[in-house]
Amino acid sequence: MTSPTENTAESTARKLYAQDRASQSLGMQLGRVAAGVATVQMQVQPHMTNGHGICHGGLIFALADSAFAFACNSHGPATVAAGVSIEFLAPAKTGDLLTAVAQERWLGKRTGLYDLVVTRTDGTVIAHARGRSHRLRSAPSTTES
Amino acid sequence: MTSPTENTAESTARKLYAQDRASQSLGMQLGRVAAGVATVQMQVQPHMTNGHGICHGGLIFALADSAFAFACNSHGPATVAAGVSIEFLAPAKTGDLLTAVAQERWLGKRTGLYDLVVTRTDGTVIAHARGRSHRLRSAPSTTES
Amino acid sequence: MTSPTENTAESTARKLYAQDRASQSLGMQLGRVAAGVATVQMQVQPHMTNGHGICHGGLIFALADSAFAFACNSHGPATVAAGVSIEFLAPAKTGDLLTAVAQERWLGKRTGLYDLVVTRTDGTVIAHARGRSHRLRSAPSTTES
Amino acid sequence: MTSPTENTAESTARKLYAQDRASQSLGMQLGRVAAGVATVQMQVQPHMTNGHGICHGGLIFALADSAFAFACNSHGPATVAAGVSIEFLAPAKTGDLLTAVAQERWLGKRTGLYDLVVTRTDGTVIAHARGRSHRLRSAPSTTES
Repeated sequence: MTSPTENTAESTARKLYAQDRASQSLGMQLGRVAAGVATVQMQVQPHMTNGHGICHGGLIFALADSAFAFACNSHGPATVAAGVSIEFLAPAKTGDLLTAVAQERWLGKRTGLYDLVVTRTDGTVIAHARGRSHRLRSAPSTTES
Repeated sequence: MTSPTENTAESTARKLYAQDRASQSLGMQLGRVAAGVATVQMQVQPHMTNGHGICHGGLIFALADSAFAFACNSHGPATVAAGVSIEFLAPAKTGDLLTAVAQERWLGKRTGLYDLVVTRTDGTVIAHARGRSHRLRSAPSTTES
Repeated sequence: MTSPTENTAESTARKLYAQDRASQSLGMQLGRVAAGVATVQMQVQPHMTNGHGICHGGLIFALADSAFAFACNSHGPATVAAGVSIEFLAPAKTGDLLTAVAQERWLGKRTGLYDLVVTRTDGTVIAHARGRSHRLRSAPSTTES
Repeated sequence: MTSPTENTAESTARKLYAQDRASQSLGMQLGRVAAGVATVQMQVQPHMTNGHGICHGGLIFALADSAFAFACNSHGPATVAAGVSIEFLAPAKTGDLLTAVAQERWLGKRTGLYDLVVTRTDGTVIAHARGRSHRLRSAPSTTES
């Protein structure tokens, strides 16, 4: 049995994911979602590698950013990423299954902080990131800082 | 006429880009490259949008990160992104042509700092980012911090 | 002859500095100030060193943060630092005269981005930082994010 | 009874603190230290306020940075801050007793990541920060990135 809060988180994430063509086209799978928390997985495919033959950092970031989006929108109101700082700690290769977990660390009136961790299935941490969210007053397409 | 330094930058970037399947599959076009500087463009496609209907932040980041990679590898030795901090300042929509410019700000023995700016063709700044590079001693696949 | 904008910047900075007991007690000297720009100097004193015998990073940060404050308040309205990211690139020793320059990089409705650079008199860059400002609606003592 | 690891952490921190004139002159008190963890307290004094009459961000940073230093040096080898990103979430006033806790989040061969949290005694979080450490090969005074 899940709490009403988890139901809101879950249903909000499912709706966002259903419209999130970027996450879908990158093969991301939405995992567990609860208030302030989300897990997303992605397998590194051959067309995701960079000039050094390892997974492009932008796609590792995209995975973390999607988990971040599902976590910071889990409370209901439309919320976007205002900024993210990421540290790339180990490379990922074609075939690696990556898991990103976003966890709320602090929540203010309109902004929030989220810790984002990306790991390989062997437990190696690929990246640590921290995201700052911004709750919107209007539609995302008119956002201004 | 280009200087030898620019030739190294240009040829290194071309080689990296030729092997960079991620940048290619996202439709990125490599523009001007010189020592410590690189420009990359990408048009936002329908499959790049997120659950809010705007360009996924991960793909805006990926564009900035590719420009960063071409700029920080422009001196020759294999160099990777150690960390990046990005601020998302305005949204991008399907059809928008985005330009990322990476500019070296500081260069140490093995690390460097790069300013990354992503703009729309109307001049609106979409994102400001700063990347920290790390020159490798060995192949990227064995990188450890 | 200075423009009205520079006069506002200059007079706002002078007033802030006059009340800024922290900057004063650390021996900081306010230099040139203009719209979006400020320069502050500080000499490293023996009581500013850390356990490794070099200038405490917190005080290098404080110098950069003061320059940031004078630059982001230069437009008039009360503005505070929302976040800062700093890279420590070289150490400073007792007796070193450090100069911090803050330069506006982007300005939105209520937030702004500033590049902060701290150098020694020999030109060596001690730190690069980037600050994000937040314009207040109410008094600073009631600030909430 | 403490473990040998905790003894190393404790004694290394005590030695560093004994030489850390900056932390001492700012009235910082070293609290609990263990492997990868450190707590430091500081009371906001009248001469620590900025032009807005609240605690100068640089001194809030300095407190977090000291906790960071004691935590990242807790393993023994001389280690310095390579970079820190801080979010200022609420103001601190004269008389407030601030507590900074540094907690190791990730440790690589020569670099580490630490979460730094500064709170008031009423539990309000003043700042969240993340530090990146760099273990030295040589004396700090000759450090280069």
